[in-house]
Formats: sequence, C-alpha cells, structure tokens
Amino acid sequence: MQTLINGQQSDFISVQDRGLQYGDGCFETIRIHAGMPILLRLHLERLERSCRRLGIPLELPELNNELKQILDSNDPDGVVKITVTRGSGGRGYRPNNQSQPTRIIQYFPYPADYNQYTEQGVSVMVCQHRLSSNAALSGMKHLNRLDQVLASMELSDEFAEGICLDQIGNVIEGTKSNLLLVKNDRLICPDLSVAGVRGIMQQFLLHRFAKDGMQSENRVVALEELKEANELFLCNSVFGVWPVIKLVENDTVFEWSVGPRTRQAILYHNEVFNFAS
Amino acid sequence: MQTLINGQQSDFISVQDRGLQYGDGCFETIRIHAGMPILLRLHLERLERSCRRLGIPLELPELNNELKQILDSNDPDGVVKITVTRGSGGRGYRPNNQSQPTRIIQYFPYPADYNQYTEQGVSVMVCQHRLSSNAALSGMKHLNRLDQVLASMELSDEFAEGICLDQIGNVIEGTKSNLLLVKNDRLICPDLSVAGVRGIMQQFLLHRFAKDGMQSENRVVALEELKEANELFLCNSVFGVWPVIKLVENDTVFEWSVGPRTRQAILYHNEVFNFAS
Repeated sequence: MQTLINGQQSDFISVQDRGLQYGDGCFETIRIHAGMPILLRLHLERLERSCRRLGIPLELPELNNELKQILDSNDPDGVVKITVTRGSGGRGYRPNNQSQPTRIIQYFPYPADYNQYTEQGVSVMVCQHRLSSNAALSGMKHLNRLDQVLASMELSDEFAEGICLDQIGNVIEGTKSNLLLVKNDRLICPDLSVAGVRGIMQQFLLHRFAKDGMQSENRVVALEELKEANELFLCNSVFGVWPVIKLVENDTVFEWSVGPRTRQAILYHNEVFNFAS
Repeated sequence: MQTLINGQQSDFISVQDRGLQYGDGCFETIRIHAGMPILLRLHLERLERSCRRLGIPLELPELNNELKQILDSNDPDGVVKITVTRGSGGRGYRPNNQSQPTRIIQYFPYPADYNQYTEQGVSVMVCQHRLSSNAALSGMKHLNRLDQVLASMELSDEFAEGICLDQIGNVIEGTKSNLLLVKNDRLICPDLSVAGVRGIMQQFLLHRFAKDGMQSENRVVALEELKEANELFLCNSVFGVWPVIKLVENDTVFEWSVGPRTRQAILYHNEVFNFAS
C-alpha cells in the first residue's frame, strides 16, 4: 500500500480538489526509521498550526490511524508524506464550510544517495529565482511551492541543493531544507518571518544545541555573510544534516571543510532515531 | 461531458501530479457565449507565455481539440477552465524532462447572479490579507492561489469582491478580477509587476479604450487614491465588468454611482460577444 486518501487505498484525487485548483492545503514529509515516524509530534504540531492558519479542520485521530496503516504495510525505513487539502467545494477561491478536507498519506523509499552527502558534504549554488515575500504565508509548509520548483530547476546534478534569497536579496533557506551558519562559535538562523519554511529538523537541532548551552541567533542574513561563515550546514527531516563544503555564486566559489559544530549537528540528528515518536 | 483530462473523460487525476503536490502549473478561465470561447486567442497567448515561463511544454493542437470536444457537448453559455500542470515525476521539487504535462478542461455553468452585478454595481471591501510579492511570478495565472483563497475567506455575502493590497499596502487587484480607476478622465491600472494577474479582460478593455483615444496609466496606486477616484470598476473574463458602488475599509464607507467610463467599459465588453475567437 503506497497511498491512502481519506483512509482508502487510491492513487487518484478529484480534479475539483482545492489542493490541485489553488494549492489550498499543506503537507509534512516525515522520515521513517525502524518503522517509527521520526519527530512525529513536532510534525503534527506544525501541521495543526498550518491547518489552523488556513482554516482547514484537521481530523487528527483519522490521520493517525491512516499513518499507522501505511507504516504497518511498508518497509521500516523510508519517507512518509502527509498532505491535507481543504477538499472540494466553495465558490471559486472562496471556500465554504461544507468542504470535507482531503488527507493523503504516501509512502516513499529513502533516497539511496542521501547518506553519502551527510558524510562527504555537498556543493550548493545560490539560485537566481527569489522567494516570494509574505508574512501571512511564511513558516508554513503549504502547497504553493512554485518558488521551490523554479529555484530547483536551476540546479545541475553537481549541486545537491540551492540557496534561495528573498525579494531584497537576503538569505532564507535551501529549496528543500533550512540553512544554518556558524560564525564566531555562534549559530545563526536566517530570519523566516517573511519567507521560508520553519523546518522541524532545524527546530529540533536548535533546541538540542541550546540544551548543551549553545544559543542561536535569529536574524536577517545578507548573502555576503555566508562567505564569511566558519561553517554552513543544511538540515531537513528526511536527510538530517548536510555539511556545505562548496558554495557557488555566479562565477565565484567558496569552500569549507566539515567543522566541529556541523559534526555536532550530525550527532544530534542521529539521536532522533532513539526517540519514541 | 464535464471534464477532459489529456483527452479522456475523467474526474480524477494522479495524486502524484505536480499540480497538486506543488501548484506546478497554470490555468485560464474562459467565458463561453453562443458556443464560442470569448477572447480565446488572448487566453491561449497568456497560457503559452505562462507555460514558457514555468518551462512546461504546451501541446496546443491537442488542447484546441479537447476544447472543441467540450464545447460541442455542453450548453452554449458557460465557463471553461483550462488547467495545465507539469504532470507527474521529477525528484521532489526539481522536475525532470520526462514529465508529460496534464491538460484539464472543465465546463461550468455561467453563474446566475453575475449579470445583476453588472447592472447594479457591487460592494467591495479591502482585505486584510496581503498578496505575496514576487516579480518572477507576477502576471501569471499560476496554480499558487493561497493568497486569493485567504483574502476571499474574509468576504461576507454582502461583498461581491475583495480588494487586495501588496506587502507594502499598495492596491493591486480584486481576489478574482482586475481593478481599474478613473480619475480626472484618465484610466489608471495598478502596477502588476510584483504581484497580481495580468487579466485578459483588462487587456482587452485597455486596448479598446486606447482605440477610442483614451490612454491608460500603469502605476503604483496607494490605497488613499481609491477613495479619491471618480469611478472604480472591476473586470474579468467571466463576469465582464462590475461597477464598484461601495468600498468598505475597516469602518469607513465610500460610495459612487455608476460613471460614464464604467458604462463605456460595459459597452466595450458587450462587443466581445461579437468577436470570432
């Protein structure tokens, strides 16, 4: 069983679904390890928060049931994507209260090449496409992802990830991950208040660093600052941590070796596999 | 026959479709009158332009065929929505070249209450939700429409439309239409270079006004200017022209009667029914 839609095994949704028509919904991508959904509580909290912001009722008991069904019938190591849309109905853009949300749970195998990137580090490039600015949408993992599609179209195979800037050229995140900087032994997170996704793995790592006494700073990060950072790393819920060892911006190349804070982040990430969900 | 998907009668699309997963596609909404798709050439030109910007190959002969099939089997008066997505495939956000685009053609009846709004005018309110800013996405009628969904959720039934501002509070458009101002006998169109959709009906009307010697001005419009306008009207391809007779911003109400330029716009719009497509 690869996909459950509102509890039914199916690979198709209604063409009327507002997820297709308007991107009217949100999603989570969750790592499955040893049959366990990793950091599930944090993922479901973000999903609930996003659904609340969008005014979509989330049926959490049904969702948990369906997640269990998917996990029971698939490999113990993989990735689950949960998508919740507002369902069908309404008048054009304007929804009505009769819509029944659509819950989609999909299982995917874990990408075979991801672990090597954690060990060896990755090359990234700065994308020309810039993220949309909107405080009312930022933070959420909603279904309006054209920015990420267009930015990732710039990548050739040599780049495992692209760095996205906002409309005025400040650094926000990777196309599919958050970016963290280490500078003078401080962790710096680019401000995500007008663009970007508040990643679960970033949230976990910041909490974990703080527990060991290393505070982080949340602030606007100019592109120039990336080049002056002592360490750079990417994180997301699927691949965990990827050290950045090479950054290409136009014709300029910057290089790093894998630093101590990045190694620490990788160790912290490995701890999540020991957590009950 | 209500819906054709890549030429096949169906109401379902693959859950893998990137239109659902990421809003990776664009659409057109076309008025059908006396069996004819109104301003079809302009709609298809915009669709081609948007698909080119998104890197989605558009199979125009197939699309035209399918449109003809839909028109042949439905009422001569209605609305057709054409959606083109990048199809399924790729690796996460990053598309690959093997994706086969999905063409969706849907037929809808013409909304019964729309004509009265053209005759009587409409009340509109200024929405709190502000549109995302992004020059790389503006102008297109792409599938990332959460802004329009959230803005239209603010409307109660007394408002036929909501006015949307951009991130810094300038006026852009309605949730489903373009907004035009008349001031000192000049037409003013809010600048759409960082947000908004370049509407086909607006394009037609501006062309038609210009042909009769009335030029238009394309520029940034502050919210204050709406209240000082001599006339305000909304336009889109489905309803044509709606005079704005009442504008509500928070607790302040502004009122207009239907002015001569708005009446002229309604007459111009009626001409489109005489055009072969």
